[in-house]
Amino acid sequence: MSPDKAGVSRPAFSRVETATLEFLEGAAQQAGLATTYDRGQNLLMSLPEDAEAEQFVLVGSHVDSVPMGGNFDGLAGVLAGLMCLLRARRQGLRFARPVKVIAMRGEESAWFGPCYIASKTLMGVLGADERAAPHKGDGRSLEAHMADVGIDLAPVRDGQPLMQVQQILEYIELHIEQGPLLIGKDMPAAIVSGIRGNFRHKAVQCIGEAGHSGAVPRAFRKDPVLAMADLLSRLDEAWLSILQQGDDLVLTSGVVHTDSESNAMSRIPDRVEFSLDIRSQDPAILTGMRRMLSEEMAQIARERKVLFEPGSANETAPALMDPKVVAKLAHAMERLGIEPMIMASGGGHDAAVFANAGVPSAMVFVRNRNGSHNPDEAMEIDDFLVGMSIIYEHLVHEIGDA
Amino acid sequence: MSPDKAGVSRPAFSRVETATLEFLEGAAQQAGLATTYDRGQNLLMSLPEDAEAEQFVLVGSHVDSVPMGGNFDGLAGVLAGLMCLLRARRQGLRFARPVKVIAMRGEESAWFGPCYIASKTLMGVLGADERAAPHKGDGRSLEAHMADVGIDLAPVRDGQPLMQVQQILEYIELHIEQGPLLIGKDMPAAIVSGIRGNFRHKAVQCIGEAGHSGAVPRAFRKDPVLAMADLLSRLDEAWLSILQQGDDLVLTSGVVHTDSESNAMSRIPDRVEFSLDIRSQDPAILTGMRRMLSEEMAQIARERKVLFEPGSANETAPALMDPKVVAKLAHAMERLGIEPMIMASGGGHDAAVFANAGVPSAMVFVRNRNGSHNPDEAMEIDDFLVGMSIIYEHLVHEIGDA
Repeated sequence: MSPDKAGVSRPAFSRVETATLEFLEGAAQQAGLATTYDRGQNLLMSLPEDAEAEQFVLVGSHVDSVPMGGNFDGLAGVLAGLMCLLRARRQGLRFARPVKVIAMRGEESAWFGPCYIASKTLMGVLGADERAAPHKGDGRSLEAHMADVGIDLAPVRDGQPLMQVQQILEYIELHIEQGPLLIGKDMPAAIVSGIRGNFRHKAVQCIGEAGHSGAVPRAFRKDPVLAMADLLSRLDEAWLSILQQGDDLVLTSGVVHTDSESNAMSRIPDRVEFSLDIRSQDPAILTGMRRMLSEEMAQIARERKVLFEPGSANETAPALMDPKVVAKLAHAMERLGIEPMIMASGGGHDAAVFANAGVPSAMVFVRNRNGSHNPDEAMEIDDFLVGMSIIYEHLVHEIGDA
Repeated sequence: MSPDKAGVSRPAFSRVETATLEFLEGAAQQAGLATTYDRGQNLLMSLPEDAEAEQFVLVGSHVDSVPMGGNFDGLAGVLAGLMCLLRARRQGLRFARPVKVIAMRGEESAWFGPCYIASKTLMGVLGADERAAPHKGDGRSLEAHMADVGIDLAPVRDGQPLMQVQQILEYIELHIEQGPLLIGKDMPAAIVSGIRGNFRHKAVQCIGEAGHSGAVPRAFRKDPVLAMADLLSRLDEAWLSILQQGDDLVLTSGVVHTDSESNAMSRIPDRVEFSLDIRSQDPAILTGMRRMLSEEMAQIARERKVLFEPGSANETAPALMDPKVVAKLAHAMERLGIEPMIMASGGGHDAAVFANAGVPSAMVFVRNRNGSHNPDEAMEIDDFLVGMSIIYEHLVHEIGDA
């Protein structure tokens, strides 16, 4: 329903997104499931007997995609929930506790800048700056696009949750792994223990002084490229030592540029610009890295007579998954005869919003090749069924115990 | 005579260049000097009594400039020679040996790519590739532009020298310093002991593998930016240790870019491209650095699972100035009451061509602010007069000895 030049594009809060929800709604109704829309215009599906439940386990993910994205990021998590409902329906089983499956709207930051829009809206934490963010294409605000799909903005602006935290017994989300760990470990799926937080500098400036590459002796140089190399090497060493202590960290400088107007092979550049994206599950490690970054920049600036202008950092707090829910999912995995594996999530997910709002949350990752956010996402259906089965096993399990 | 939007532009082998030579020719003739053009269409000026000398000390530099260049790069060396002639003429002195002052045409690589064009032509070493190089503006070959100014190309193509090495007793060139050493040392001028050679890689490719900045653990990464930072830091350390051993080296990475089409803050880049410009007076140090670069690239490629593609290197051999001529100029400096100072040249100069052809050569550098090849070149006229006087003192000295 949403082809692009390559891959699929389902823009957040678009007609394509609405059509996707309507397609899922039709399929659920045909299978005898109950459907409704919440106040954020997300689709809710359940067994008919759970339709009026005041408290429920919420299972799902988002249906939007990045531009030219893949088949699985987001949508697989919605289908996993839907398949749990269909399976229970066919087997004539009830879940231990009522279950609602949610197909959420916009989660991807690619369209407006802010991410987790639907889940933030449900939890009443979508900020004014975020609501005002312009669409990459038409420039109209996120709010305007939310109104287009029928969301009443008054409570959103007031910061009122559109779904009560107390209603949600657990939030469970299946998602493709966006990294290669499960492929490396030869495992079909894993349970997520936490979602890495991060701090990011979009463009650190390192400012030195231009000069003739042959004529300026080392002692007179203010070389920003060697200063940047020094900083990145020091951060890289710190990263290694943090991992060796058993702590969690990833560190990336994805964008590096000297000034293309003035740079030349035989010219000491006057400046270089580079991004930093530093993530950890552990807030203390992030705090330590922020301090270390600032100290190393100060020291290198002194030693190499350059100036670092890091600009302001964007920060996202780590989100811990609920240890009890993680343990229950790991047990479900074990009961299916698969060695339980627990790992951190590097990418961000709606589960982080629910967890930080106080909902006991956990995720199931499914093995996937080629990362996400591209047309080459490659999840094997057998692996998907393993992930779905872990959730199903968890949802029906407490019947056996009862 | 050659203003540009900023600074001056005297293109190599252009009408502006020819007009500049004609202006100098007129001034020399008005002062009673002899003038002629050599077979490379460079202007030669001398005392009338030296006009027919078969052997002579050659003093001079080039008159072309880079686009939007400064007042002094090149032309100051021609004027220093002309002033030596005028001073001898006014004082009624003869030089110890005949002196010819040369105002050379194209030396800058900015117009065609090849550098030292006039001096290479005189020494019979201008290559076929260089003669075929297209002009940056009109795309016509260097040969075509050389023909425009009246040069007979037949001997040039045959590799015949247009001036015999045996005729040139010494080649002496005054030039502004292109670095900040004389300002740092508070010295008006210095004698050049050698011209650094170099090897340059225009675009080293480091190829890794793209991935999600949050989701890919360190062990699975092939990060080309951290690999580049590692390489540059290792080269930087080697540089420091080479200097500490008293050897000569400068090292610059002036151009660094990730792929602007695909790079993003939250994406491990798949590649980064960077330039390397490594220079030394000592061929053995250059050989050592080439070997070290290749070894470090291989080691980092293994350790970090990336690929380095350095491409081919452009190499220029160092040129040693003649120790006797250097010593004589240093003595001249001393006789003027200035503490002699001897230094390496980082930039290349016509003197390198004469030296490598077997002409005993040396240079005098004059203190200059703001580097060269820009409108802000800033040489004090008093410093220029010191540099000129060193050469004059040297040229007349052997009279006193005779």
